[in-house]
Amino acid sequence: MGLTVTEKIIKEHLVVGEMKRGKEIGIKIDQTLTQDSTGTMAYLQFEALGIDRVETKKSLAYIDHNLLQTGPENADDHLYIQSIAKKYGIYYSKAGNGICHQVHLERFGVPGETLLGSDSHTPTCGGVGMLAIGAGGLDVAVAMAGGEYYITMPYIVKVELKGKLRTGVSAKDIILEVLRRYKVKGGLNKVFEYAGEGIKYLTVPERATITNMGAELGSTTSIFPSDEETYRFLKAQGRGRDFTPIEADFDAHYDEVIIIDLDKLEPLIACPHSPDRVVPVSSLNRIKVNQVAIGSCTNSSYMDLMKVAKILEGKTIGEEVSLVISPGSKQVLNMLAQNGALAKLISAGARILESGCGPCIGMGQSPNTDGVSLRTFNRNFKGRSGTPSAKVYLVSPETAAVSALTGYITNPEEYVKDINITMPEKFLINDNLIISPAEKGEDVEIVRGPNIKPFPRNKAMDETIGGKVLIKVGDDITTDHIMPSNAKLLPYRSNIPYLSNYCLIPCDKDFPKRAREFGGGIILAGHNYGQGSSREHAALVPLYLGIKAVIAKSFARIHRQNLINNGILPLIFEKEEDYGRIDVLDELLIKKVLTQMKGNKIIVKNISKDEEYVLLLDVTERQRNILKSGGLLNYIKARSSHR
Amino acid sequence: MGLTVTEKIIKEHLVVGEMKRGKEIGIKIDQTLTQDSTGTMAYLQFEALGIDRVETKKSLAYIDHNLLQTGPENADDHLYIQSIAKKYGIYYSKAGNGICHQVHLERFGVPGETLLGSDSHTPTCGGVGMLAIGAGGLDVAVAMAGGEYYITMPYIVKVELKGKLRTGVSAKDIILEVLRRYKVKGGLNKVFEYAGEGIKYLTVPERATITNMGAELGSTTSIFPSDEETYRFLKAQGRGRDFTPIEADFDAHYDEVIIIDLDKLEPLIACPHSPDRVVPVSSLNRIKVNQVAIGSCTNSSYMDLMKVAKILEGKTIGEEVSLVISPGSKQVLNMLAQNGALAKLISAGARILESGCGPCIGMGQSPNTDGVSLRTFNRNFKGRSGTPSAKVYLVSPETAAVSALTGYITNPEEYVKDINITMPEKFLINDNLIISPAEKGEDVEIVRGPNIKPFPRNKAMDETIGGKVLIKVGDDITTDHIMPSNAKLLPYRSNIPYLSNYCLIPCDKDFPKRAREFGGGIILAGHNYGQGSSREHAALVPLYLGIKAVIAKSFARIHRQNLINNGILPLIFEKEEDYGRIDVLDELLIKKVLTQMKGNKIIVKNISKDEEYVLLLDVTERQRNILKSGGLLNYIKARSSHR
Repeated sequence: MGLTVTEKIIKEHLVVGEMKRGKEIGIKIDQTLTQDSTGTMAYLQFEALGIDRVETKKSLAYIDHNLLQTGPENADDHLYIQSIAKKYGIYYSKAGNGICHQVHLERFGVPGETLLGSDSHTPTCGGVGMLAIGAGGLDVAVAMAGGEYYITMPYIVKVELKGKLRTGVSAKDIILEVLRRYKVKGGLNKVFEYAGEGIKYLTVPERATITNMGAELGSTTSIFPSDEETYRFLKAQGRGRDFTPIEADFDAHYDEVIIIDLDKLEPLIACPHSPDRVVPVSSLNRIKVNQVAIGSCTNSSYMDLMKVAKILEGKTIGEEVSLVISPGSKQVLNMLAQNGALAKLISAGARILESGCGPCIGMGQSPNTDGVSLRTFNRNFKGRSGTPSAKVYLVSPETAAVSALTGYITNPEEYVKDINITMPEKFLINDNLIISPAEKGEDVEIVRGPNIKPFPRNKAMDETIGGKVLIKVGDDITTDHIMPSNAKLLPYRSNIPYLSNYCLIPCDKDFPKRAREFGGGIILAGHNYGQGSSREHAALVPLYLGIKAVIAKSFARIHRQNLINNGILPLIFEKEEDYGRIDVLDELLIKKVLTQMKGNKIIVKNISKDEEYVLLLDVTERQRNILKSGGLLNYIKARSSHR
Repeated sequence: MGLTVTEKIIKEHLVVGEMKRGKEIGIKIDQTLTQDSTGTMAYLQFEALGIDRVETKKSLAYIDHNLLQTGPENADDHLYIQSIAKKYGIYYSKAGNGICHQVHLERFGVPGETLLGSDSHTPTCGGVGMLAIGAGGLDVAVAMAGGEYYITMPYIVKVELKGKLRTGVSAKDIILEVLRRYKVKGGLNKVFEYAGEGIKYLTVPERATITNMGAELGSTTSIFPSDEETYRFLKAQGRGRDFTPIEADFDAHYDEVIIIDLDKLEPLIACPHSPDRVVPVSSLNRIKVNQVAIGSCTNSSYMDLMKVAKILEGKTIGEEVSLVISPGSKQVLNMLAQNGALAKLISAGARILESGCGPCIGMGQSPNTDGVSLRTFNRNFKGRSGTPSAKVYLVSPETAAVSALTGYITNPEEYVKDINITMPEKFLINDNLIISPAEKGEDVEIVRGPNIKPFPRNKAMDETIGGKVLIKVGDDITTDHIMPSNAKLLPYRSNIPYLSNYCLIPCDKDFPKRAREFGGGIILAGHNYGQGSSREHAALVPLYLGIKAVIAKSFARIHRQNLINNGILPLIFEKEEDYGRIDVLDELLIKKVLTQMKGNKIIVKNISKDEEYVLLLDVTERQRNILKSGGLLNYIKARSSHR
């Protein structure tokens, strides 16, 4: 039987296990990327591994999150990462060079290779047929040290695209349609593999919009085949040599197949406060917009912004609209500055922000109180914009641009007739903000600002685990809830003690205080706990606060791995209804944990209520050992000392 | 006897008093401007005046300070100001349109008219021969309501420019030279009037660099004649009709004359932490720079940035340098985007920030800990960059650009041979981000976000004033010390209760606590107290904390006026040595204040030490009455109710 694109790449990189759906496998990682908000921690962990030089084909350290620099912390972190990169053989992409995913796609993505990134939107490079996966910083550190990366061998969903998009409908609407169907937890342990005649009309930047936002499905990743379009893109980036064709075999087996008829697709919009609350733009009544924000790793490519420039050309944005545009990379910005498109955007009244993540991660441009913000981004979780009461909608660049002009959420099909933007035959190539590592790292001194604090490390698991239930939260809690990451907190990503004052406060402002009062304890949660960003801080900070276990109805993939990597038990209810029986401040006790962990059922006693519940510990032997060791770092250190 | 340019304009606008040096005069204000960080307060005060519509020829409300928007406060303030502008007949310059002074110079400055702005750098428009003065928000509110503005009839300093600047030496070096000679307190109650053959080689934007940074002298303002260059500039801005020639009479009388020989001037630099610590760039040893920041209302004109683009063209900035550029206005940014210069800046590695004040006011781009930052700005007060340990130097765009390339503070004369930038014959004119007021304001509703709190109002002066000395500070305390204004605090300019937690904390972190503990009291200070920004918050916040009097060796002009406007006594030592006799927590008492205020000597008793000191209250009759009323607002309200 033939193989899918995903299977072909996994097969080439398989180091541990067998390619059986649902089973754990270890794969070799060719490339890694970090960004600055997860990167400082990843590199602190990399240092703890005690390796002299990265062992990947290529590792990149990007600066794209903390660009506001409202205090010395950010510049200090940048210098730390720059010195680490120089010393350990990592390429350093300076502030101003652009968003990691956009730049990686442009300059480094290679079809058929594997990429592990400490950012949940790493799947962007699936747009060039790369197996690109988001992970916690420690996993990336281990991969840089040459270690394999473990995933559940994914189920493969074939997304068959039929026909061709109409004018005014775009790649963003395709991924919104997938989100409409699968919802934010529908992708767990799945890879979404795109196929069908429709893909040949999608350029690589459009494909990357889809694979990027595929992260919102909770999937392992999303991927396109590597075909003529891929070659055209790589060639235009001066990287024709990086091309390899990879297509699924005609008799490949898919676990699910869905069909999207592009001819019939219409402009879609994700309503507050979840990327899967998708409806047609045309179904909304005249909603006034206060802000329109165009950019982010989802929709900030040259082609996206050229479309926007064409729509805005010669016009002026609504009197009461603030339009902000963050180009995805220096390449994008530079090309727009050269060809006059940027001047058109400025003329229309757009505020041009730096090439970086910007408002998508709440770093600036928070809307007014109760404001409506229309964004081309990938997430609209409540409060992520920096304004708790804001209503954030997610749309395509076309919908955003047209709405900026009218001042109301507007279906672009009514306004946009012809915006035929073709991909340039040659992109502007100038990598002068990418700094090469030193040939020999020995003499490079690491620059450590005062905000860079040691990270917490767990110890081997005790025979008995217990504590009070410190909080009880519902479904779909994001890592933005667990470790908020607004403009005031993001600069402190290297400072776990400081961040711990803000853990889970969007759910319960007294959580940090309570955790301290009781010397740690247990978190109780509903479905899809830990969705969203890959930030390891959502595990490191609870660890710092003494959290021993999280009991949930289900977990999001990356966060569950981060809990295991930090020695925190991720437990699932055997009977979901038991969730209702436990209250905050109940005292739970798990006796003989190490013995119980030999099986996959864990009995927990609720001392306060004198009840017992059966919980599932659905982990592999390897993960079991990591948990027993008190986390991945201890596990690796112990293994290497035994060699 | 003939008149100076200053006298000619004052004569045309004189409403109260006589043009006798050192005497108080009231002048009619033609135009006003506000920016957003002082504007919300100015408009709250304007509302309190109860006027239906502004009575100026033109009033502008700019948004240029709070552009980061790290929470809802900024967007809320913008909407408040936009609605106020619409209702009361004020033109509203949206976020993205640029820095107030740059835009006002381009689009609104008129030779021979008067401009009052709630920003200390309002003198920028002196570059087109306008009498442009910075003031507190309440003074601007009163001017918008048609009231006259009071100043001390200034002494006139003639700055005679001889010869012509050499390549690599620029307008910035001229004002640095004046600062080197006069220092930050040398300009009190003086106007610096530029003259001599050298001025004909200076374009209006270059003149504006000089008048802008003249604010650092503590002067009333700086001004150039209106001549052929002025006409050339206005015509290129499509405003030839606004031109009137104004030159000093040949027999005009100046109080002082200084001569600067431009041929001999060399590139200068202001060292940390004061704009008057000026030395030649060539005198510094090889100092490594971490950051170079180009922009601010001093040096962000089209011509400034064209020079920078020419220097950077085809090159790459130093590997360890972060170069940030904030263009002064949408016009500037748009022209650079159209003519390719912006692409050159981006190619070289510059990070392009929004058109606004940005890093100059600590809104972002804080340097690393202990970092060296080279800036084309006007102020380098300690901590203003957002990094308390940073070392900030002030230079010309040429010095900044060359140093960004070399990575060290570098004399541009060594590198720059020919950067002949000529002023365009026609600037790009597109005022679509300037929103006109409603024809009728009645129906416009004011938008008031939750962060906009009522401002404190004083009450009529008590017969006895006293309290503990809550703090004792040295010379040259800036309004940045009194009311810090970093990226974390600037968003709260409409919220005095919140800001009060941070009053004077750079000098003594316990000051707010102590002020609360003792229910207010007295501030003791050295020379030039309150230099720097015009922010009225440096008086409003102390008022909120119960400050009754500030006793100093001397005051900066705008701050002293702000104290009076808020009913806080600004007292000066008759004998400076008495400053040394008073300690923190001494209990001071001024008996029969109202009686004592009839003269200009005030006896204060130090109860703790059983001593008495003679203090001077150097105020006019009008100011005396304002103080007695408990501030300007009470004074005006009382006057109008008596009519």
